[in-house]
Amino acid sequence: MTVDVVRALSEVLPAESLVTDRDVLDAHRHDQAEWAPSGMPRVLVRPASTEEVQAVLRVASALRVPVVARGAGSGLSGGANASEGCILVSLLRMNRVLEVDRRGMLAVVQPGALNAALKAAAAEQGLWYAPDPASWEFSTLGGNLATNAGGLCCVKYGVTGDAVLGLEVVLADGSVVRTGGRTVKNVAGYDLTRLFVGSEGTLGIITEATLRLRPRPPRATTLLATFPTLVGAGTAVSDIMATTRPSLLELMDRTTVRAVESWKPMGLDVQAAALLLARSDAGGAQGEEELGLMAAACERSGASFVMNTPDEAEGELLMQARRLAFPALEQQGATLLDDVGVPISRIPELLAAVERIADQRGVRIGTFGHAGDGNMHPTVVFDRKDPEVMARAKEAFDDILRAALDLGGTITGEHGVGSLKRAFLSAQLGPETLRLHHTVKAALDPGGILNPGKLL
Amino acid sequence: MTVDVVRALSEVLPAESLVTDRDVLDAHRHDQAEWAPSGMPRVLVRPASTEEVQAVLRVASALRVPVVARGAGSGLSGGANASEGCILVSLLRMNRVLEVDRRGMLAVVQPGALNAALKAAAAEQGLWYAPDPASWEFSTLGGNLATNAGGLCCVKYGVTGDAVLGLEVVLADGSVVRTGGRTVKNVAGYDLTRLFVGSEGTLGIITEATLRLRPRPPRATTLLATFPTLVGAGTAVSDIMATTRPSLLELMDRTTVRAVESWKPMGLDVQAAALLLARSDAGGAQGEEELGLMAAACERSGASFVMNTPDEAEGELLMQARRLAFPALEQQGATLLDDVGVPISRIPELLAAVERIADQRGVRIGTFGHAGDGNMHPTVVFDRKDPEVMARAKEAFDDILRAALDLGGTITGEHGVGSLKRAFLSAQLGPETLRLHHTVKAALDPGGILNPGKLL
Repeated sequence: MTVDVVRALSEVLPAESLVTDRDVLDAHRHDQAEWAPSGMPRVLVRPASTEEVQAVLRVASALRVPVVARGAGSGLSGGANASEGCILVSLLRMNRVLEVDRRGMLAVVQPGALNAALKAAAAEQGLWYAPDPASWEFSTLGGNLATNAGGLCCVKYGVTGDAVLGLEVVLADGSVVRTGGRTVKNVAGYDLTRLFVGSEGTLGIITEATLRLRPRPPRATTLLATFPTLVGAGTAVSDIMATTRPSLLELMDRTTVRAVESWKPMGLDVQAAALLLARSDAGGAQGEEELGLMAAACERSGASFVMNTPDEAEGELLMQARRLAFPALEQQGATLLDDVGVPISRIPELLAAVERIADQRGVRIGTFGHAGDGNMHPTVVFDRKDPEVMARAKEAFDDILRAALDLGGTITGEHGVGSLKRAFLSAQLGPETLRLHHTVKAALDPGGILNPGKLL
Repeated sequence: MTVDVVRALSEVLPAESLVTDRDVLDAHRHDQAEWAPSGMPRVLVRPASTEEVQAVLRVASALRVPVVARGAGSGLSGGANASEGCILVSLLRMNRVLEVDRRGMLAVVQPGALNAALKAAAAEQGLWYAPDPASWEFSTLGGNLATNAGGLCCVKYGVTGDAVLGLEVVLADGSVVRTGGRTVKNVAGYDLTRLFVGSEGTLGIITEATLRLRPRPPRATTLLATFPTLVGAGTAVSDIMATTRPSLLELMDRTTVRAVESWKPMGLDVQAAALLLARSDAGGAQGEEELGLMAAACERSGASFVMNTPDEAEGELLMQARRLAFPALEQQGATLLDDVGVPISRIPELLAAVERIADQRGVRIGTFGHAGDGNMHPTVVFDRKDPEVMARAKEAFDDILRAALDLGGTITGEHGVGSLKRAFLSAQLGPETLRLHHTVKAALDPGGILNPGKLL
């Protein structure tokens, strides 16, 4: 039967689209998620067109073979990990920015195009593609769409899904649908675009996307504030969000700041409980006014230090501290990067819960993330060589998910469920909503061939 | 069998929730859409709770009776029109703003609450509920959600769906699901929230919504520009959108301006081909800078007159002209209000096509709308008493839909498909995407009891 899969595919695809070399298969079987299980694919398919994706899905449907789609493999939840014996579909050959329509303020792209490639193509026309997951330089737009990826700009400009006008999707049976269109507003029919965005390859394979571009915002000005308490930092976050519109609002806790300082000393305050980094991209006097409102909010909330700078180089230096957060924690051991969301009013409680969990489990946890959206990345740092410590790290990871749910939050704000958090999805959704998910999945993929064992 | 429906409902609902008076039924059978067909409901149900909605749907499912939900009846596509013998569910008793969480920047509402009530409740906490359909003073949030209503603020703040964090929905079988949650970012599972938003009561009945609030923006400054040609006005629109972020960008064509001037003279230029109205709510110096960019775009595009004012009263006066657009056209005869969207680069072509259609069909068409989103409302004005003219008006209405589709647009930007535009949905979606709609509908409402004959 597995022999038949390759033979059947070779009858409908050009030879260069098929790879069965075992080393290559092995190199493509997983994404960046620690511990997420992966199987060995039967074959790697590298389609060059929508038609080839259709051909793959027709064969897969006929033979009932699982199909797992992948982009750059930069995912953080195992969503693109191969299942045993699957057809692994790499979309990296479908990597063109097909169109940038300057006057229409949109772009049409293939799923394998890098986020960075679209940003560059838009910039050539004086426009801006907003979504900026941390992986933007090496992740594909298809992957961004499949996970509804977030990033730093979301606090003002929304997530990937907010930038999608329309999609072309190949369904499990090989048929092609086009959702949405080229207009900003469109209520003709169900919002199937949003149904596919974030569905992690379980409902169809996105083969083209029409994405919204924006005018490039003015140069950002940057604010840094430190706080003696987590509650103070959390209060400042909701105060800032209630009074102005930052283009970025990031938090780093003491453990994270210390990790950065011990790796690349920048003179950050290692005694502070938390550090906030905020930006305004309103520009000019309004930018100054927004920074003033942010500074006032920080001071009201008991900040021990507040500074801001319109200087671009200095602002970049401060941003550098935030960008180093995760790599700095990685310097200290193996890491388990979590991704939870809470209502922004409950950030202090989340941070306190994470501290408790670190104590209880006897592990170190550095927390940083997109505070303005309530989306935080508590990161467990541990010694991988010690199986007992590793077990406690995993427990801590799960405890953090439970803490987020207890605070009315979500088990994933932007990384996706993948295979890493499947067990917790039912706790968040409840039985009836989970049942509705299965109803939708069964309707769109009755054979269950699309990325089985992920998300649901 | 119809007797059984009322008896079955009376067994599970309190008497005050059931109405069978024929005059009352007749008064509730349709919304504001001209010509959309409506039937006589068998019974009007006025549930006071989610549990009562569940009870209604269990009875309806068991007896296979159609269920049509409605709010204030202010819809413009016949989406809430009764089908013959249906159970008509009015959600006006479920009209509470249950919670305004200032620090969490969200509100929890029942579907029968007016948009205006939420705006007021948010304002009490210094916050703002952005979505502002023209009907905001008298339409319900449930109706806004069911149609994914737009409005004037969308150009900067998005449509109703962009403000939704989570929903409680009663499904056809009477089960209750909760989608989304209280966090801004959330990728745990499929985006079922967006699937229900805009589904016009065909997939479930929304019984509660968690909506996002924002900080109140600074006072807006206003710009008015007139253009000797439609192409000039259209070029200005895309130029403005490519260079800055207006909080409002509306267009009125000559026919509309003349209707306003002949009803309530304001000294508008009745010779201009089109008038643009734009606002910035950035505030202070940035507001001035944004208006400067808009003015420059208008001048580059050949505007014959450009003025702007930071004065609130003067700005309100200009806004008044836009608000009078539809009522002024209504003064001139019966109207057929259309609602189409095109990519903003194609607005001039849409306006030219509408002029051609008016000529060809021998009817007057005034066009106004949300130019910054490419969402326009060409409005056919005609003499209702003459059946031949009326027939031509209908033809013109349909021609406008075809013109929008030819320009890569949509048959509805914000009013919904309802029963008025069903015949055109397949032309927009194509057979495969339409089939997927039916697949989703059949999965969620296998008995086909939810608002049959609408949208699909």
